[in-house]
Amino acid sequence: MFFKKKYTIKNIPKYIIGNRSKIPIINQKMLESINFDNAASTPILQPVLEYIQDYLPWYSSVHRGTGFKSQLSTELYDFCHEQVLNFFQGDFKKDIVIFTKNTTEAINKLSYRLSLQEDDIVLTSIMEHHSNDLPWRKKCHVEYMQLNKQGTLDLNHIENLIKKYGKKIKLITFTGASNVTGLINPIYEIAQLAHAHGIPIMVDGAQLAPHRNINMLPHDDPRHIDYLALSAHKMYAPLGGGGLIGPKKTFKRGDPEYSGGGTIKSVTLQNIYWADPPDKEEAGSPNTIGAIALKKSMDILKEIGINSIAHHEFELTHYLISKLKKYPEIILYENIDSLSIDTKVGVVPFNIKGLNHALVAAILSYEYGISVRNGCFCAHPYIHHLLKLSPQQIYMQQKQILQSNYYHVVGMIRISFGMYNQIEEIKHFLTAIEEIIQYSKKDYYQKRYYLDRKTGAYYPKNYSIDFQKYFLFNS
Amino acid sequence: MFFKKKYTIKNIPKYIIGNRSKIPIINQKMLESINFDNAASTPILQPVLEYIQDYLPWYSSVHRGTGFKSQLSTELYDFCHEQVLNFFQGDFKKDIVIFTKNTTEAINKLSYRLSLQEDDIVLTSIMEHHSNDLPWRKKCHVEYMQLNKQGTLDLNHIENLIKKYGKKIKLITFTGASNVTGLINPIYEIAQLAHAHGIPIMVDGAQLAPHRNINMLPHDDPRHIDYLALSAHKMYAPLGGGGLIGPKKTFKRGDPEYSGGGTIKSVTLQNIYWADPPDKEEAGSPNTIGAIALKKSMDILKEIGINSIAHHEFELTHYLISKLKKYPEIILYENIDSLSIDTKVGVVPFNIKGLNHALVAAILSYEYGISVRNGCFCAHPYIHHLLKLSPQQIYMQQKQILQSNYYHVVGMIRISFGMYNQIEEIKHFLTAIEEIIQYSKKDYYQKRYYLDRKTGAYYPKNYSIDFQKYFLFNS
Repeated sequence: MFFKKKYTIKNIPKYIIGNRSKIPIINQKMLESINFDNAASTPILQPVLEYIQDYLPWYSSVHRGTGFKSQLSTELYDFCHEQVLNFFQGDFKKDIVIFTKNTTEAINKLSYRLSLQEDDIVLTSIMEHHSNDLPWRKKCHVEYMQLNKQGTLDLNHIENLIKKYGKKIKLITFTGASNVTGLINPIYEIAQLAHAHGIPIMVDGAQLAPHRNINMLPHDDPRHIDYLALSAHKMYAPLGGGGLIGPKKTFKRGDPEYSGGGTIKSVTLQNIYWADPPDKEEAGSPNTIGAIALKKSMDILKEIGINSIAHHEFELTHYLISKLKKYPEIILYENIDSLSIDTKVGVVPFNIKGLNHALVAAILSYEYGISVRNGCFCAHPYIHHLLKLSPQQIYMQQKQILQSNYYHVVGMIRISFGMYNQIEEIKHFLTAIEEIIQYSKKDYYQKRYYLDRKTGAYYPKNYSIDFQKYFLFNS
Repeated sequence: MFFKKKYTIKNIPKYIIGNRSKIPIINQKMLESINFDNAASTPILQPVLEYIQDYLPWYSSVHRGTGFKSQLSTELYDFCHEQVLNFFQGDFKKDIVIFTKNTTEAINKLSYRLSLQEDDIVLTSIMEHHSNDLPWRKKCHVEYMQLNKQGTLDLNHIENLIKKYGKKIKLITFTGASNVTGLINPIYEIAQLAHAHGIPIMVDGAQLAPHRNINMLPHDDPRHIDYLALSAHKMYAPLGGGGLIGPKKTFKRGDPEYSGGGTIKSVTLQNIYWADPPDKEEAGSPNTIGAIALKKSMDILKEIGINSIAHHEFELTHYLISKLKKYPEIILYENIDSLSIDTKVGVVPFNIKGLNHALVAAILSYEYGISVRNGCFCAHPYIHHLLKLSPQQIYMQQKQILQSNYYHVVGMIRISFGMYNQIEEIKHFLTAIEEIIQYSKKDYYQKRYYLDRKTGAYYPKNYSIDFQKYFLFNS
């Protein structure tokens, strides 16, 4: 008997719900949709939905219920904790998985649970998404790691910071891959450097986990990842799942930042005795279905093979960049010489000279049915850095935003691939880009679109979509 | 043309996924499942699942995406905020809905966002679920409102507390209906009393919202509800949705307790400017689907009619209690004289004299396919109160639990109805109870079941369910 793989990198586009579905564009036309905004969120996998449908007749509250369905749900929910840990080769004795609703909750939770003092130091970097920057600012003193020529974290600067601050540094936290440039940080080298000085690391895995293999490695390996945060909605399971993985001992200490049902062993009016983690850290009834969806999507990713996904996505990325760099009108924000499967996931930011990023994104959407993202991608300091803005320019940008005047506010257009994207979609996109460059020279779009200054979005003149009319709102 | 109502209190059992599905019980038999554990979590409504299935091809990240699907998703997500507010007649100008994953998160969030000082006072009550007690303990000084003869909040005691503490009291928070006894608090009277002294109230609506109408009333009505917390998974939409409703001005002030993507207007390395609420309070990518599911379940509840649900569930409750009180072996924990549709939702706790609550729950599950809950229902102080335990007894109970010795740990068995439950299910349950009472006199069950002292659960001897074998784990 031969084992037949059901899901492969070749057939997976068929199993992405809504992939290439027809959408309305300008002038009452319908077009096949192309989604190049996977760094924001991914569509759901058909087998994930099917799995949830199979489970729903058995759904019941987890923990402490005696009914058959409750026991089954509890077993399955516990199994999901195990499987998520297994996906990253975590340590079943020492690590735990805490289910959260997204990466942001995971990082915020850790920022509370490390019991940081005001003069403790956390190293984060200037290439972080706000979710791995702002939570730390309120808890302690934050120092920003700088970037090297390749645009990733500069090990020399980290070493200098460690020399300078020593034991005051309680955590080095950084993104596995940037949501703006796709650049992959040298996780294991940073881990090694940090551990040599007894400092734990946290990897924001949101943008890396769906695209490259992440191995937490054994606790006694100096390259070990101490904490890992991730989101299911970037892993083809957008049902409110996510997780924080880390050593159980961290969560045994102290009080959880959120408390309530499920977090305790015993309570009187005078005292509280906490349950063991992860229960202690998952206050209230958990989103069991979100956790189950994440587990199932991980099964599918494993079946396809993370390496197959990586190779396919890198092929797309390489193709896109090699084509884009031929246009003198296109500005790219990367060191193309160092492009490799190990240094970049499929996230490509760009601009077209003389055209506002928001206008380009609007044209791609309204005229070509292509979804991208534009703006600052919840990473303002990184965008300021990449655009080489002066302090004065940053000040002026902020002033404008606070006045709700988005005229000429900076940003980029971002293409981000999922495992289901195809070369032919990029070809369609490149045709669009070529047309945009040509037509814009005649001020064609500038006349047809207007800017909503309050939001920074461009809209086609004399065209608006009545979403309420379409579906879902009255059904 | 006649308008035909699709969903009614009569036909709704057909639309509950998994309702009465066959489950395995002891001795390789299969039985129709009966779910009397709706206070813990409810199964999902078929139309909620269908709605999600209809939406999934259009799923995309909300906020700031320019693609058609992203704009549609954003519109729909905003619409869900509105519809949830609408369900409780909130004020569209003054109030906001913040989506959370459950009631516990909603209450914890509020406990941070009121910027309480150590010597501020919050009044909560001894009849609360832990989720409306523990979060407050760490933020300020907590005083516990006592209960009157009917078992609900004692207005005189509240008045005394207000006289004693005056303006130090920053919030009066209490459950709309108890998850242990189903007793409904006089929300509007408490609101009136609190507002006469300028104190806002918060209602934990988790157990009330699915069963009785909650009207927040206009802000200038003295009976107005200031804050309301709720969970979708108790409202037939268990997909990680929930919410905190309250005045926008509360959330305009200060910093959110969780920060990151989506919460800001502008960020530099030196400063943060927050977005307007609710964005400011929903850090990271939200669980759009959980919110949409909640909105859809509210549509269905409205279509059935909350009053129809209330009448049906009260009929079940009245029937159950009137039957149970005929058995001298049954201990009930309520004042039956005051039983009315306005004073109690369908939650009935009881015990059988001489039989451990966990043993009864196990027998109901393994021999009759009936799901109930037993124990202390995440409300230890309330259970101690209802069981009239002395401080010494409470101390001994806690000591045992902390030693992981659940032999003779106190608790109750709880029946809790959903709108789809039927009188015939109660009849089946009453037959079971009669048999349990009869057989237990011969020590029948005591010989067939054993206690796992570490967890407090009873299991049938020589029988175990291999859940892994059944389904879902390897699919």
